[in-house]
Amino acid sequence: MQVIQQTFQVQYSYGIHFTEGLFNTNNTLLPDLLKKDGSLGPRKLLFVLDSGVAAAHPTLQQDIKAFSEHYSQVLTAASDFIIIPGGEEAKNDPKYLQQILDAVNDHGICRHSYLVAIGGGAILDLAGFAAAISHRGIRHIRIPTTVLSQNDSGVGVKNSVNAFQKKNFLGTFAPPFAVLNDYHFLTTLEDRDWRSGISEAIKVALIKDAAFYDEIKTNAAKLVARDKAAMDSLIFRCAELHVAHIGGKDPFEMGSSRPLDFGHWAAHKLEQLTNYELRHGEAVAIGIALDVTYSMLSGRLSEQDWENVLALLVELGFDLYVPELSQTISETNQTLCISVGLREFREHLGGQLTIMLLNKIGEGEEVHQMDDAMVKKAVALLAQRYSKAPVIH
Amino acid sequence: MQVIQQTFQVQYSYGIHFTEGLFNTNNTLLPDLLKKDGSLGPRKLLFVLDSGVAAAHPTLQQDIKAFSEHYSQVLTAASDFIIIPGGEEAKNDPKYLQQILDAVNDHGICRHSYLVAIGGGAILDLAGFAAAISHRGIRHIRIPTTVLSQNDSGVGVKNSVNAFQKKNFLGTFAPPFAVLNDYHFLTTLEDRDWRSGISEAIKVALIKDAAFYDEIKTNAAKLVARDKAAMDSLIFRCAELHVAHIGGKDPFEMGSSRPLDFGHWAAHKLEQLTNYELRHGEAVAIGIALDVTYSMLSGRLSEQDWENVLALLVELGFDLYVPELSQTISETNQTLCISVGLREFREHLGGQLTIMLLNKIGEGEEVHQMDDAMVKKAVALLAQRYSKAPVIH
Ligand SMILES: NC(=O)c1ccc[n+]([C@@H]2O[C@H](COP(=O)([O-])OP(=O)(O)OC[C@H]3O[C@@H](n4cnc5c(N)ncnc54)[C@H](O)[C@@H]3O)[C@@H](O)[C@H]2O)c1
Ligand SMILES: NC(=O)c1ccc[n+]([C@@H]2O[C@H](COP(=O)([O-])OP(=O)(O)OC[C@H]3O[C@@H](n4cnc5c(N)ncnc54)[C@H](O)[C@@H]3O)[C@@H](O)[C@H]2O)c1
Ligand SMILES: [Zn+2]
Ligand SMILES: [Zn+2]
Repeated sequence: MQVIQQTFQVQYSYGIHFTEGLFNTNNTLLPDLLKKDGSLGPRKLLFVLDSGVAAAHPTLQQDIKAFSEHYSQVLTAASDFIIIPGGEEAKNDPKYLQQILDAVNDHGICRHSYLVAIGGGAILDLAGFAAAISHRGIRHIRIPTTVLSQNDSGVGVKNSVNAFQKKNFLGTFAPPFAVLNDYHFLTTLEDRDWRSGISEAIKVALIKDAAFYDEIKTNAAKLVARDKAAMDSLIFRCAELHVAHIGGKDPFEMGSSRPLDFGHWAAHKLEQLTNYELRHGEAVAIGIALDVTYSMLSGRLSEQDWENVLALLVELGFDLYVPELSQTISETNQTLCISVGLREFREHLGGQLTIMLLNKIGEGEEVHQMDDAMVKKAVALLAQRYSKAPVIH
Repeated sequence: MQVIQQTFQVQYSYGIHFTEGLFNTNNTLLPDLLKKDGSLGPRKLLFVLDSGVAAAHPTLQQDIKAFSEHYSQVLTAASDFIIIPGGEEAKNDPKYLQQILDAVNDHGICRHSYLVAIGGGAILDLAGFAAAISHRGIRHIRIPTTVLSQNDSGVGVKNSVNAFQKKNFLGTFAPPFAVLNDYHFLTTLEDRDWRSGISEAIKVALIKDAAFYDEIKTNAAKLVARDKAAMDSLIFRCAELHVAHIGGKDPFEMGSSRPLDFGHWAAHKLEQLTNYELRHGEAVAIGIALDVTYSMLSGRLSEQDWENVLALLVELGFDLYVPELSQTISETNQTLCISVGLREFREHLGGQLTIMLLNKIGEGEEVHQMDDAMVKKAVALLAQRYSKAPVIH
């Protein structure tokens, strides 16, 4: 019995750049980055736009055209912009994936051309997946336009679409060529999208960085008032913590540990149960509320820390209860639907169930099982405090 | 302007194991490998079978079931086998991709379970792609059953399906968990599938290893007579050369250089022009014949080496001409269709056109353009020598 052993390493490297007015002709960030790719002539760039961004920034397409003409030695924007409805719908309906693949084919986009996505986390996940599977991976630039995508989803290495009614069923790990964060886009966000991404900052602060948590707490009123400096700082630190974690031991998540998914097991299920009426970040806020409550009930987290976290989420304007949290499988089977989500979460990740809980602010700990009865108790506590409908006993 | 720099390395490692009677209960290769994955309980294995293999090995499913029961502490085979028509059809029709994804969902296959594919290069490419995009990558074991897949396609890091009538339009780079080469499967191959993969060995020998070329030349009659020892040796060395190349500078083909694609630019187009009537390896044999002829005509390769290569291909039973080689775009546009293929090849790979030509047996050299008129001349020469229909002048 013979064996040939294959072993190699692949090095990945990309920057998350913070700028403003990315497509002003006097902003050289993008052409400067492209020039480093080793190509000779102008590179072809195919743009995918989030419809919400296109609507809120009516001159964007014009600006990109003018920018492309100005830097015609370095880049050429494809004549069409691919505009895709923003939000989870983009990941739910397979026709949008097909639309991007069609455009890649029509415009002759090759492995040395670029697919540039401008939009929220959903559009970035979709376009990133399309880029990853076209010609076994074409170059991909992300331009995130929501708080959540600038501080979390857009800075990492994952992409995905939904299938079989399951969140992120299809996807790959595929680092981008670059990430370009332009604060200007955030000015047109609805309040809920402005707020939504803050929950990811709280998430990572809670498990990794108590000082960052304190900063968010101190700045809460400013964040509500849409203060630029407070948000700039929150996004930068949150992105930094995510980037550091991903670049650490297990970038492509071969193991079972996934600390950045704190608060996410319930969140994913709630997104689905509410038919994606909840934004990802809104669902994460509820997921955090649930997991800190579970942590408190199981004697792991002090009541004081627990109250502190809930108060911050409320101050920022998050709802901490939706009726779907209490939804059971049926009249006869009183198992909570979110507990089924726990099993689906394990199936998606595989291996041993590994859930992050909180010992104190700034310090998480992973456990390998959760008690259904205690989850129910935590849900009841949130219902009692935060339900908007009168709770019937 | 701030920037967060992300840099990390991912280490990949897998073995290509040579065995016989993989699913005999006294063969511990597979359970031994699985035990090293760090999981505790029995791992779930979902099997995708090439219909040609299933037909030629009627006890295979039974054997796998018995094997799974014997090693039930280590592995559990999913109750259904996914049987997919072997050959290029599997990569052409998107319903087969969907069929595998459905099964992944139905059987709750997670990132720590295995998708095991048994079949020719087409089935491996399809199943590898399905595995790579399910849950952002589930574990994948390849059991190649043709010469071509045991010595080339199955030992590497690429998967794909066809789209837009273009070969390998969709796919990823995704190293397998392991590759298991079982000679026993090769005994049931049709002669053309036995022969087909030999062209890939000649390809890699020509550009990298003159001694290996001599060995193939010496063993030609034995190979035609389906001699086991000769084939064992050919497969092992060919796999070794492919593995070494892939593990070298550019495993995921970020650059434009692709020496292992010697003879392939015309081959890919011929597969398409013949509606996949030609096997990949058969098309590669013609592609090699064309590129050595071009190398000779352009004064790069001696006539003696040229004759030597053509004679070997003929001795092995390869056809070196098909009418599609001379096909032109139209009556009015006399550009060869394969020359259009050259441009599509560049587009698929991206960047600068980079084509391997031959200086002498065992030594290739890359060039960045090919002359359409000289390609035509090479085609005419092959037509004159090897056309089966009378050539009209
Ligand atoms: N890949 C990852 O690692 C990762 C991590 C976390 C979340 N995600 C995914 O990200 C998605 C959520 O992303 P999101 O929170 O950014 O929301 P979103 O992408 O769903 O967008 C929300 C809404 O904001 C609109 N919008 C976007 N930018 C705008 C702007 N500048 N001005 C006005 N409107 C704008 C969109 O059109 C949409 O209607 C989810 O699908 C989630 O699964 C992915
Ligand atoms: N991923 C890569 O790096 C890579 C490299 C080279 C080629 N390929 C791909 O591989 C494919 C060609 O693969 P192939 O040459 O193995 O042919 P194939 O997969 O097309 O199979 C040829 C035929 O042999 C049958 N068959 C397979 N094993 C058998 C067995 N043991 N007994 C009887 N019949 C059997 C199949 O059912 C099919 O009818 C092409 O799609 C090509 O693009 C991929
Ligand atoms: Zn999240
Ligand atoms: Zn090949």
